[in-house]
Amino acid sequence: MRKLIVFNHVSLDGYFTDANSSLNWAKTRKDDAEWNAFVAQNASGNGPLLFGRKTYELMTQYWPTPMAKQHDAAIADRMNALPKVVFSRSLRNVSWNNTRLVKDGLAEEVRRMKQEHGDGLTILGSGTLVAQLAEAGLIDEYHVVINPVALGKGRTMFDGITETLALKPTKSRTFGNGCVYLVYEPLAKVQSQAA
Amino acid sequence: MRKLIVFNHVSLDGYFTDANSSLNWAKTRKDDAEWNAFVAQNASGNGPLLFGRKTYELMTQYWPTPMAKQHDAAIADRMNALPKVVFSRSLRNVSWNNTRLVKDGLAEEVRRMKQEHGDGLTILGSGTLVAQLAEAGLIDEYHVVINPVALGKGRTMFDGITETLALKPTKSRTFGNGCVYLVYEPLAKVQSQAA
Repeated sequence: MRKLIVFNHVSLDGYFTDANSSLNWAKTRKDDAEWNAFVAQNASGNGPLLFGRKTYELMTQYWPTPMAKQHDAAIADRMNALPKVVFSRSLRNVSWNNTRLVKDGLAEEVRRMKQEHGDGLTILGSGTLVAQLAEAGLIDEYHVVINPVALGKGRTMFDGITETLALKPTKSRTFGNGCVYLVYEPLAKVQSQAA
Repeated sequence: MRKLIVFNHVSLDGYFTDANSSLNWAKTRKDDAEWNAFVAQNASGNGPLLFGRKTYELMTQYWPTPMAKQHDAAIADRMNALPKVVFSRSLRNVSWNNTRLVKDGLAEEVRRMKQEHGDGLTILGSGTLVAQLAEAGLIDEYHVVINPVALGKGRTMFDGITETLALKPTKSRTFGNGCVYLVYEPLAKVQSQAA
């Protein structure tokens, strides 16, 4: 049994995409050795990445390009090499290296993958996946980097949940670049929003 | 010159009100001595409270009632006694003890009040005030208690800002009851969202 974690940058107002549905709003300052060590450590696993269609399309427009190779060589190599799964009913095919398309049965496929051996599964971005898998009780940890910025508009990764999701923080860390890293686990019992 | 701070409970997805426009979603666990000491310390100032109409109406439906007196006697006494200012064009009059109604000129009035002597000014709730005063550069500190819960829907206190608001965290503290307390100051230079 391996874990499924979510890793997302969010604004102080809770958004992982901005008003333009972009992930590029997070201008995380790189002049922070502790932060850079944290990023390098996060990038050390070899488990599959899980995406919804929108995040997949944003990622594949950048990481396989020469621009990514030039600006973020180490991360680009890694993003291109890692196994990736994209969940989408509308995509016809996927061209990014080492990517598998799953058209139906999100929860069933994730449940099956969690039972395999190997490094943990990670969702990046992908609010629709997060909301659905949170409600299915399949997410083990939420890793959230709160960037020191308010956007005013955007999309949260919990958009679509129908019940209040009760969580328990298990880690917190503040970085010199202003980012606050919080890790939460779901509490087994969720509380009905209507209650 | 006195400070203007915002103090709000928010969910992990950034909301200070839930889908029903209620502030009552935050079921903060009270079985935490450190948390209770923190709450008592926060309640020690005597500066005015600032509200928008919606939050004012929620507050005045509860704090002056016998129920508040019974459940939260100390806080009710304090909320009823403190000077309060409500900013609203539509309210005709205000009946809550020690409350003043200001119909126009939000930023001008807040600027004037900040120049008075005395304990600092605090906004509770009141997303519309927060968004407008943030853009006017009049908020000195954002005190945010992130409750360990995701709501899925609600309103953020930054709803309505037209430019990205750049912040700097100055304090962080994690409580045994799962709340994470973060304090931010605005960075002088705001970054255009359109940039």
